[in-house]
Amino acid sequence: MMEEKVFKDPVHKYVYVQDETIWHLINTKEFQRLRRIRQLGTSYVTFHGAEHSRFSHSLGVYEITRKIISLFERNHYPDWPREERLLCLCAALLHDLGHGPFSHSIEKTFKTNHEDWTCRMILGDTEVNEVLRRIDPSFPEQVAAVIAKSYPKEIVVSLVSSQLDADRMDYLLRDAYYTGVNYGTFDMERILRMMRPYKGHVVVKDSGMHAVEDYLMSRYQMHWQVYFHPVTRSAEILLDKIFMRAKALYEDRYPFRFMVKPIQALFDQKLSVNDYFYLDEALMQTVFMYWMEEEDGVLADLCARFIHRRLFKHVPIEKEDEALAEELKLWMNRRGWKSEYYVEIDFPLDLPYDVYRPGELDEKLPILLLDERKQLNEISTRSEIVRSISGIRRGQNQLYYPAEIVALDDMPETLRRLLDADR
Amino acid sequence: MMEEKVFKDPVHKYVYVQDETIWHLINTKEFQRLRRIRQLGTSYVTFHGAEHSRFSHSLGVYEITRKIISLFERNHYPDWPREERLLCLCAALLHDLGHGPFSHSIEKTFKTNHEDWTCRMILGDTEVNEVLRRIDPSFPEQVAAVIAKSYPKEIVVSLVSSQLDADRMDYLLRDAYYTGVNYGTFDMERILRMMRPYKGHVVVKDSGMHAVEDYLMSRYQMHWQVYFHPVTRSAEILLDKIFMRAKALYEDRYPFRFMVKPIQALFDQKLSVNDYFYLDEALMQTVFMYWMEEEDGVLADLCARFIHRRLFKHVPIEKEDEALAEELKLWMNRRGWKSEYYVEIDFPLDLPYDVYRPGELDEKLPILLLDERKQLNEISTRSEIVRSISGIRRGQNQLYYPAEIVALDDMPETLRRLLDADR
Amino acid sequence: MMEEKVFKDPVHKYVYVQDETIWHLINTKEFQRLRRIRQLGTSYVTFHGAEHSRFSHSLGVYEITRKIISLFERNHYPDWPREERLLCLCAALLHDLGHGPFSHSIEKTFKTNHEDWTCRMILGDTEVNEVLRRIDPSFPEQVAAVIAKSYPKEIVVSLVSSQLDADRMDYLLRDAYYTGVNYGTFDMERILRMMRPYKGHVVVKDSGMHAVEDYLMSRYQMHWQVYFHPVTRSAEILLDKIFMRAKALYEDRYPFRFMVKPIQALFDQKLSVNDYFYLDEALMQTVFMYWMEEEDGVLADLCARFIHRRLFKHVPIEKEDEALAEELKLWMNRRGWKSEYYVEIDFPLDLPYDVYRPGELDEKLPILLLDERKQLNEISTRSEIVRSISGIRRGQNQLYYPAEIVALDDMPETLRRLLDADR
Amino acid sequence: MMEEKVFKDPVHKYVYVQDETIWHLINTKEFQRLRRIRQLGTSYVTFHGAEHSRFSHSLGVYEITRKIISLFERNHYPDWPREERLLCLCAALLHDLGHGPFSHSIEKTFKTNHEDWTCRMILGDTEVNEVLRRIDPSFPEQVAAVIAKSYPKEIVVSLVSSQLDADRMDYLLRDAYYTGVNYGTFDMERILRMMRPYKGHVVVKDSGMHAVEDYLMSRYQMHWQVYFHPVTRSAEILLDKIFMRAKALYEDRYPFRFMVKPIQALFDQKLSVNDYFYLDEALMQTVFMYWMEEEDGVLADLCARFIHRRLFKHVPIEKEDEALAEELKLWMNRRGWKSEYYVEIDFPLDLPYDVYRPGELDEKLPILLLDERKQLNEISTRSEIVRSISGIRRGQNQLYYPAEIVALDDMPETLRRLLDADR
Repeated sequence: MMEEKVFKDPVHKYVYVQDETIWHLINTKEFQRLRRIRQLGTSYVTFHGAEHSRFSHSLGVYEITRKIISLFERNHYPDWPREERLLCLCAALLHDLGHGPFSHSIEKTFKTNHEDWTCRMILGDTEVNEVLRRIDPSFPEQVAAVIAKSYPKEIVVSLVSSQLDADRMDYLLRDAYYTGVNYGTFDMERILRMMRPYKGHVVVKDSGMHAVEDYLMSRYQMHWQVYFHPVTRSAEILLDKIFMRAKALYEDRYPFRFMVKPIQALFDQKLSVNDYFYLDEALMQTVFMYWMEEEDGVLADLCARFIHRRLFKHVPIEKEDEALAEELKLWMNRRGWKSEYYVEIDFPLDLPYDVYRPGELDEKLPILLLDERKQLNEISTRSEIVRSISGIRRGQNQLYYPAEIVALDDMPETLRRLLDADR
Repeated sequence: MMEEKVFKDPVHKYVYVQDETIWHLINTKEFQRLRRIRQLGTSYVTFHGAEHSRFSHSLGVYEITRKIISLFERNHYPDWPREERLLCLCAALLHDLGHGPFSHSIEKTFKTNHEDWTCRMILGDTEVNEVLRRIDPSFPEQVAAVIAKSYPKEIVVSLVSSQLDADRMDYLLRDAYYTGVNYGTFDMERILRMMRPYKGHVVVKDSGMHAVEDYLMSRYQMHWQVYFHPVTRSAEILLDKIFMRAKALYEDRYPFRFMVKPIQALFDQKLSVNDYFYLDEALMQTVFMYWMEEEDGVLADLCARFIHRRLFKHVPIEKEDEALAEELKLWMNRRGWKSEYYVEIDFPLDLPYDVYRPGELDEKLPILLLDERKQLNEISTRSEIVRSISGIRRGQNQLYYPAEIVALDDMPETLRRLLDADR
Repeated sequence: MMEEKVFKDPVHKYVYVQDETIWHLINTKEFQRLRRIRQLGTSYVTFHGAEHSRFSHSLGVYEITRKIISLFERNHYPDWPREERLLCLCAALLHDLGHGPFSHSIEKTFKTNHEDWTCRMILGDTEVNEVLRRIDPSFPEQVAAVIAKSYPKEIVVSLVSSQLDADRMDYLLRDAYYTGVNYGTFDMERILRMMRPYKGHVVVKDSGMHAVEDYLMSRYQMHWQVYFHPVTRSAEILLDKIFMRAKALYEDRYPFRFMVKPIQALFDQKLSVNDYFYLDEALMQTVFMYWMEEEDGVLADLCARFIHRRLFKHVPIEKEDEALAEELKLWMNRRGWKSEYYVEIDFPLDLPYDVYRPGELDEKLPILLLDERKQLNEISTRSEIVRSISGIRRGQNQLYYPAEIVALDDMPETLRRLLDADR
Repeated sequence: MMEEKVFKDPVHKYVYVQDETIWHLINTKEFQRLRRIRQLGTSYVTFHGAEHSRFSHSLGVYEITRKIISLFERNHYPDWPREERLLCLCAALLHDLGHGPFSHSIEKTFKTNHEDWTCRMILGDTEVNEVLRRIDPSFPEQVAAVIAKSYPKEIVVSLVSSQLDADRMDYLLRDAYYTGVNYGTFDMERILRMMRPYKGHVVVKDSGMHAVEDYLMSRYQMHWQVYFHPVTRSAEILLDKIFMRAKALYEDRYPFRFMVKPIQALFDQKLSVNDYFYLDEALMQTVFMYWMEEEDGVLADLCARFIHRRLFKHVPIEKEDEALAEELKLWMNRRGWKSEYYVEIDFPLDLPYDVYRPGELDEKLPILLLDERKQLNEISTRSEIVRSISGIRRGQNQLYYPAEIVALDDMPETLRRLLDADR
């Protein structure tokens, strides 16, 4: 074992590196690339402090995993498989390796998937792969399997990916720190002390129930106050529209004045690992900046709105107003706007909404409480608070539109009233 | 006056905007551009949390200035010229408007100057200028004069730019917050409460002396622990070398595979305000990434080192070892390295070292204490601590070099010993 | 108006005093007495940091009230009655003036009431009364009326005493700070910014709903994790038993070796304001310490348990076990214990449980949300989270008993199993 | 080893107890008694949050010592004598065991010494002694020797008592937390990581120098801003005067209306361990409260000033004004005041001033830096900052006097000017 090294980290004070493998992984070019991808995508347009990278978050997830395992080892819990330590740490560190710039929008339009990319980067001809193979030729596959949740030991998977995993704990604390809101804080040390490896699961002692409630409440609050903030959604909708428009133009063989290879490969759905390496947020922003000068007025305009932060306005919209929204589009089309790029109704329901919801058909491992008689209980069967959070699905739908249309004289009164937030 | 608006800010909790003019300035494209310039340049290579932008800092400087003025107004201090409020706020908000990407390196190689650019952007044909002119046609000139320290009322200048100004207070607190170190913390509220407008100066009541000592100590600590961190310096030296190399190639009419207009204009020293708008850190990083594929081996190599964070190593070096360093360069040249791009001795003395130093030939306004008999005393005449900080000039010189040369078999023993940190 | 004075406060950074009256009230001997009463009674036995006084809390409540009023005044809200400012501030500062040592236990046994005492101290021949009368002869009555919730303007009462008042906000933040738990934190500044005076109520803008949810969640968590902590309850039960025993002895004309006048007056239910002044926690602790040497074995033993922190043990107990608990008492009686002083079942239901519960027959003013159409809605009609918290009534009942009885050989097996936490 | 137990602590988040011995020591009545002694004596009159006890501090010192030793063990440093672990932990926990109420004043007047009392309580017939003897009959002596600095291994002594020990680190952080000032914060984790056991000393790696400077600066600031705050000093002077007066009366056989045994034993200098147990701050406050009704006017008045916080006023005084101060006393004597109880000049020089001062004739172990060539250097030979702090001896002398004398008409003009702070 090498001499302990540390990274100064605002959330965990220090991140401790005690294994050569971890140290070398951090220094690969693929891991360093994560410095160029923001953790929170477009949230910085709403919370100016939220400019932290996936690099920071990945170190944080690693550190929490290291702390949990250290607690398990220190207390000699018999159900903890000690030989899995390094595998867990590597998977924790690398779980986000394949994230690209503004992942949600790109994945939506171009059908890429950051989890696939993580595996490609772990298994392909990369520096990360080379470091992992030094442990064992099959080690990269094992790491990829943990991240893909196909590794046979659930306890290993659940440390990295479950409803109460190092990933979620780090991002709640970190996003709260960098945005400056205090909704994301909870007593992580208490939760960690209450965790137990038990019959192949990571479970929580009964007496930790209130601390877990508090953690789930933080998740709930962060979703509504930060992750789904309508201003952030507005920027994401703009991104979606930019990608939609550029893709449509590309398919129409529009001659882009500014085009770089990774973007072309993205359009052709032929991205190589090397292209992907180039595809960071700096590149995307540069492309958007140059596209402000494209001949296509829609693309140029959308990019300028994004770069100059001239976001679409939003008003809450009810079910019964959707017909009116369609009318608005028609009216805008008549006025020469391509409304498919300029109006959007956003249903928070469609979003990858991560509030705890036991029993759903997803692969998320639920949170289990261990009581004094060694029985396991899914937490929502014990906590009324958790049940209430789990049941909430409804967010406020919002209509997004360009601010300047309100100034147009000939807007029909019914439409005007639709857009009038103070109606 | 409009309805109060707020920005969530991790350092000041909230930034309060109470004037239409401030609101409109924030929404100009020139001010939004500051989101794309990091506050701490290359410090993120050392402190991964330090990815905050000049946009955040500028809001912070504005907010501190607003708080000071609000205190002055609330207490009806007669020496405060109330009519200067908006001017102070605008100058505080805009004081960093002209900062470009990695300012220090670019300014060094291309002789640009961010303060000139700030004035050009305030006085030129910009959205900022347009907003300011709505107050009064001469208002842009007044704002520029405050920032250039040529405005006739010292009290206005000193709020924005002095040894104890809103700028320094914000960056110490903010940089400490985002790096995660706690050297930069001091009791800002106490200092603010002790400030008094007095005969054209902003001074501090005697009883605030210890709080000011603490603030100066924070500055001292942040300089040595953060701003001059040798790893950060290593990244800056790499940047210097990249710019040096690219400039030399350009002057030799080397045919760049990848070149964009703002960079060319920078090389030609013909940057327009519009070019400057494009010149952000995203663009620079994209350029460096593409230059990794240039035919020129030195440029390609230096850029790859920067992008992949393969920084030069450093060893402390004493005066008497400088001859040896020259020998190292000669030996490297013989081995085929262009040592002017690969070896550097860094003297912290040359740096824009900002520790408090009264009586120097610079324009910084000193810190004055107001005693009970209404006498003003420069703080270092009263505080032994301040005298001791002011006197410290010596930093550790460091020699920077590529890590891999140590592995070369034929390195002479004397050189090897020079590079051996544990000698 | 006098020159602004400040108190350094860990929770609010500074407490600002801007009125002579407030300054003089703080310096009265009755207000200074609050330094000698702990804010959290016996919680310090569980959380060793919780040794803060009602003096700190009272300053905090004043400061929050001051901030709210300052926001109302700064924004010129028409529904705010500006003339009530000083009345609100005085009532906020003095609302806990009548608290005695370990209030809950004393009030339970001796039927005193701290709210009555607050009024007696405001209206009686006290320094506080004298300061208030300088404003107006009827001012003490007005202050007392606000605290007694009989003042005719609800808006004034609700600032000091409602479901979202300065009192609750301060104690949650303060108790969280001093215990070191982080359950009590919420974004007070956001709530304050969302408050509006509206038609005689203080209401919250709709967009502040999530922040209020977070505040109510903090209350819920603090109740279960701090205020009703079973170890704290154990200390309170001990106090109850001490007072019960002493009262019984006194009524039996037991000759106390150590007795002081205020305690005697308490027993006689003839406390004067002057006696009450003496009745602080220092006196109570001194009395308990001396009673460790009383001839009465029960009193001496109970006091020694309290002073040496030899608290009763506790086990969770279900409804169906209560008969067993009665058996335990009988068995203990047979063994020579006076079980009425040594065994207790604690039902958290009986406690002054302060979780938000709209529609209950108490005088607490509910939390109203103001929507965009200027409609008021009680918050639980809008928030599923709030409904879920409001519905939770059940706490875990606990059986308290002396630890040493478990070691007695002849304890019947059924009783032993009752006391075995790991059964 | 028992199952790990924790205490929630605001400063260190959690205090971890891993040894039965530590657990039993904490539960002794002598250790529990420390809950009834405030850590900062009279500082609460200035900083209302500073009501934390020596119990909290003692747990904190233990926790820091535990962390240091855990680091030493984890890194397998060969110079660390592993067998001394439990001895260090016990000494750290118990080092303040003998502190009485308002120690400084009592020690000054009655020549007691808290360090002697600590040893008496460890070696005498106490619960603490009984727990320690279970380890080994000679263990109490060893613990006492470490605390008395006579234990032969310096490395053990220096963890508990040196210029950079667990004691100082805890109290700076804790006092800063509870007062709410932020002068006491420094990066403890960094200092801990830089500590090395080396040839019988605990030393600090060279690269930790700036962190140690920051720690010493915190000490300097805390001394001037908190520990020597003139308002706190005013309360201490009042205590001194109360004890002086009571002692004088006692020696004159004055018939006290209210007297308790431990106080009498204190006067007689015949305190037993059992008396000492009773002598806590609750008792002292109760005594002062009752002495407000003594017939002796001076004692009654001084006690009332203390209880009601009617402290003496203070003005800064220069050397040349001391003759005037003598005149003031004479004038007051003529007016019927016993000036020896009512006027005092306070020279901060006389105080147990703990700023770092190498080479002084005291037993404090200096701070040694370990450089890369394994040389040890006393820190002030390397750091200009430390030299400057070490050199500062001068504090501002203050004259303390009763506020009301200024209102007396016949005060000579020269005396009036002496007391006029705004002269």
